[in-house]
Amino acid sequence: MPDLDYIFYPNSIAIVGLSRSPGSYVNHFYLNPLIRFGYKGDIYPIHPTASELAGLKAYPSVLDVPGPIDHVICAIKATSTPGLMKECVAKGVKTIHFFTSGFSESGEKEGIRLEKEITEIAHQGNIRVLGPNCMGLYCPGSGISYEPSFPRESGNVAFLCQSGGNSIQLVHIAGGRGIHFSKVVSYGNASDLNESDFLEYFTHDPQTKIIVGYVEGTRQGKRFISALRKAAMVKPVIMVKGGVTKAGTKAVASHTGALAGSSAIWESLFRQAGIIQVCDLEEIVDLTLLFQHLQPSKGRRIGIVGIGGGSSVLATDSCERERLNIAEFAPELIEKLKEIVPTEVDPGTSVRNPADISAQGWNPDTFSKALETIANHNGIDFIITHVNVPLGPSADELINQHIDSLIKTKQRLTKPIATVALRSDIPEAINNAIGIQEKCARAGIPVFSSFDRAARAISRFIGYYEAR
Amino acid sequence: MPDLDYIFYPNSIAIVGLSRSPGSYVNHFYLNPLIRFGYKGDIYPIHPTASELAGLKAYPSVLDVPGPIDHVICAIKATSTPGLMKECVAKGVKTIHFFTSGFSESGEKEGIRLEKEITEIAHQGNIRVLGPNCMGLYCPGSGISYEPSFPRESGNVAFLCQSGGNSIQLVHIAGGRGIHFSKVVSYGNASDLNESDFLEYFTHDPQTKIIVGYVEGTRQGKRFISALRKAAMVKPVIMVKGGVTKAGTKAVASHTGALAGSSAIWESLFRQAGIIQVCDLEEIVDLTLLFQHLQPSKGRRIGIVGIGGGSSVLATDSCERERLNIAEFAPELIEKLKEIVPTEVDPGTSVRNPADISAQGWNPDTFSKALETIANHNGIDFIITHVNVPLGPSADELINQHIDSLIKTKQRLTKPIATVALRSDIPEAINNAIGIQEKCARAGIPVFSSFDRAARAISRFIGYYEAR
Repeated sequence: MPDLDYIFYPNSIAIVGLSRSPGSYVNHFYLNPLIRFGYKGDIYPIHPTASELAGLKAYPSVLDVPGPIDHVICAIKATSTPGLMKECVAKGVKTIHFFTSGFSESGEKEGIRLEKEITEIAHQGNIRVLGPNCMGLYCPGSGISYEPSFPRESGNVAFLCQSGGNSIQLVHIAGGRGIHFSKVVSYGNASDLNESDFLEYFTHDPQTKIIVGYVEGTRQGKRFISALRKAAMVKPVIMVKGGVTKAGTKAVASHTGALAGSSAIWESLFRQAGIIQVCDLEEIVDLTLLFQHLQPSKGRRIGIVGIGGGSSVLATDSCERERLNIAEFAPELIEKLKEIVPTEVDPGTSVRNPADISAQGWNPDTFSKALETIANHNGIDFIITHVNVPLGPSADELINQHIDSLIKTKQRLTKPIATVALRSDIPEAINNAIGIQEKCARAGIPVFSSFDRAARAISRFIGYYEAR
Repeated sequence: MPDLDYIFYPNSIAIVGLSRSPGSYVNHFYLNPLIRFGYKGDIYPIHPTASELAGLKAYPSVLDVPGPIDHVICAIKATSTPGLMKECVAKGVKTIHFFTSGFSESGEKEGIRLEKEITEIAHQGNIRVLGPNCMGLYCPGSGISYEPSFPRESGNVAFLCQSGGNSIQLVHIAGGRGIHFSKVVSYGNASDLNESDFLEYFTHDPQTKIIVGYVEGTRQGKRFISALRKAAMVKPVIMVKGGVTKAGTKAVASHTGALAGSSAIWESLFRQAGIIQVCDLEEIVDLTLLFQHLQPSKGRRIGIVGIGGGSSVLATDSCERERLNIAEFAPELIEKLKEIVPTEVDPGTSVRNPADISAQGWNPDTFSKALETIANHNGIDFIITHVNVPLGPSADELINQHIDSLIKTKQRLTKPIATVALRSDIPEAINNAIGIQEKCARAGIPVFSSFDRAARAISRFIGYYEAR
C-alpha cells in the first residue's frame, strides 16, 4: 500500500519551462492555477534569465532554489530532460512530473531511449516520475491544478486517467452535474508511477469514496488486476477501457504507446474483479452520480411517475431494454393513487406503472403525494420520475415548483430515486435544465437528460449490488 | 392518395372551449398562436357569452358564425361533443380536431361509446375527425400551431405523432438543432384520420423531404404497411415505435388505447418496408440531421480527424461498436499529412486514422488542410471531425476560428461530413456549443454532442443507402 500523500500534498513546487509571457501555455496551465487555487506551499518559477515571474522570485535552475523542492513540473523539450533529472537528484526532489512529450509514445527510437534514460536516473536518485506525456495532478484540497477552469471545490471522487484531454473533459462534464474530485491524475506513459500505484493509493485514501478511471493499457497486468480487485472490495470502481475495439487498440498505440490488449480479456477481467465497466466519459459521470447520491437498491423493480403519456411509454421501453422491471402496481396502490390523481379529471391520467399523472402533476402537492405513495409501496425498489423542461411564459415557475416538491418529498423517502429532465438545446430550456441539475445535486437527486442513459446507468448501479 | 391540403391550410378556424381568461390553457395553446403565427384565414372564437376574445369577435356557437368554417378546434368536455358534432355537420365544417379527451383511451365504456358516436356523426356528415385526445396541427406555413413556443420558420420535415407530449418534445429538440417542419400532426386516438392517412399525404407532399414518426399502434395494419412501403420508396422515413417492450405495450394501452403489437413483428415490418427504426426522439433528430444535410454515403469507411488523443480513442471505439470501419490510411496519405502536421512539433500528433492533429489543429489553416487531405483520399467514404468545446479566456475565439475553418473547408468537399462537439453542462460551454450548432446547421454540417450518438446515427444513415 503506497502512501502517495507526499505527491498530492507537496510542500514546495518548482516549474521548469516557464516563459516571460504570462499568457504562454505553461504559465497559464501550471503557474497561474497554483496562485489562483491558493496553493499554500512555496512556488519556485525556474527561468534561465527572468528574476521574477507572476510576482514570484524566479531562479535560473532548481539548484539555485534556496529551500527544498518536493515536486517539479517539467515542460522543457525532451532532449533536455536528462540534464534536469540529474539536477533534481542533486537537489533531493521527491517527484517530477513531465508534461513534456516526445518519449516512448512517439514510437521513435530516440524517444524510447530518452524515456528509459530519465526513468533510470529517477530510480537511482530515488525520485518518482509522473508521466511523461501527461497533464499531471489536480488536487483542489492542496491547491494544485493543471486547468485554471477546474472547480476549486473538493469532492469525494478520485480519477486516474491515462489521457490528459479526457481528464479535462471528464472534470468539466462532472462539474456541470455537481460532481467534484478528491484527486485527479493524468499519468500518460506511466514510465514509473502507473495505474496500479494510483489505484492502490486511492483505495486507501480517506478523501476518496468512489474511484473512476480511463485506462488505455497496462504494462503490469497481474499487479493491476490485483489492485482492481482490492479497490472494488472497498469502493465502487467505474472504468472506461480506451481502445476496446480493433481500430481502438491501434489508436491507443499511437496515443500513449500502451499495449491495449483484447477487449474480451479486459471485459472478463473487469467483471471478475467487480469493476463497473462503461463505454464513455459521460457514462462514468452517470454512474458516479448514482453512487454519490443514492442508498443501495434492493432490487430492479422500478416505479415510474411523471407527466406525459408518450414520455411514460418511452421511459418504459428504455427501462425494459436495460432489464429493469416495470413492476405491476398492486390493486391497493392503484386505489390509493386514484384518490390522489382522479382519472376522470384528466382522462390522460394513468395510475398504473408507469404512472402518468398528467397535467394534474404540475400541482406540487399532487405530485408529492403520488410520488410518496408509489415510493412507499413495498413492490417497488427504485423510483424514476420524469418531466419535460417546459418552455413559455410560466415555465420557470412551473418547473421550479415541481423540482422543489420533488426535493422536499425525497427527504422523506428511504428508497433510491432518480429524475429524468427531458430538454432541448434551446437556451431557455438549457438554463432551466442547468438550474434543475444544480438544485438536485445539492439535494442528492441524480438527474439525467435522457431515458436511455438513465436506464443504462440505473441498471448497472443495481447490478453492482446484485453481484455483491 | 388523399389530398389533405385542406386540413393543413384551412381558410377559416373556429375554436370551441375558449375562456374569458386570456391565460387559460385553450386560449394560450390554440387561440393565441393563430394570432402570433399570422394565420391568414378567419378566426372565430366560440364562447357562450363573450362578444369578444383576444380582440376578435366571438360567437355563441358555430352556427352563429356568418361565413363558412373549414376547421374546428374542440376543447369542450367529452359529453358535450355529440351536440357540437351535429352543429358542425349543419354548418358544413370540413375537419374537426378534438383536443378533448375522455374517449376510448380512458378504457371506460362511456368513453368508447362516445368516440363511436362522434365518429359516426362525422362519417354521415362528411366531416373528417382529428383525434380525439390529441394536440392537433402545427403547420408554420399556414400559421397554425398548438404551442406558442414552436418556431415560426418552415422546414422540410413532416412528423406524424400519436403522442401530443412527444410531438412537443420533438419539435423543441429539433428546433435547438436547426431542424424545422413542413407539418406536424398529433393524432391521438385516430378514430377517423389515422397514421396511414397522414403518411400517404406526407409521401406526396412537395414541402416534405423527410418523414418522421412516433407511432404507438395501428388499427389498420395492412394499409399502414403498404403506406410505409410506398413512403420509404420516395423519402427517408424515420420511426419510433412506442411500446416495443412488454411493459411498454401495456403503457401504450392506457395512453392512446392502441394495440401495440409485438416488438418483433414491428421490427421486421419496418425493416422490410425500408423504414429506419430508432429508439427515441433524440435519435429521430440525429438521423434527420444527417438526411437533411448530407449527400448519400458510398460506404462505411470512416476517416476521423480531431484534436486530442483520448477523444480519438473513444471516437474509434464508438464507431467500431456501430460497425463503422476505421479505414487504415494509405502510406501516401500519411506522408501528405506528415507535411501538414509534422509529428515532431507535437509528439502527441498522430497522422494515422484516427488522425489526432493535436494542439497544432487549433491553427485553422492546419486543420483545414488536414481535413481536406483526408476527405479527398479515395479510401474514405465519410468524415467525422471532433473537438472539445474549450473553456477559459480565449476559448470563444479558439472554437469560433475552428468552426469557421470547418465550414469553409466543407464547402469544397464532396463527401458527407459530421462533427462531434464534446461539451459539459457548464453555461459557458453550453453557450458555445449552441453557437456551434447554429453556425453548423446553417452551413449544412450535422453536429452531435457524443461519439456514441454520432456513430449510431451515422451507421444507420449509411445502412439506409446500403439497403437500397
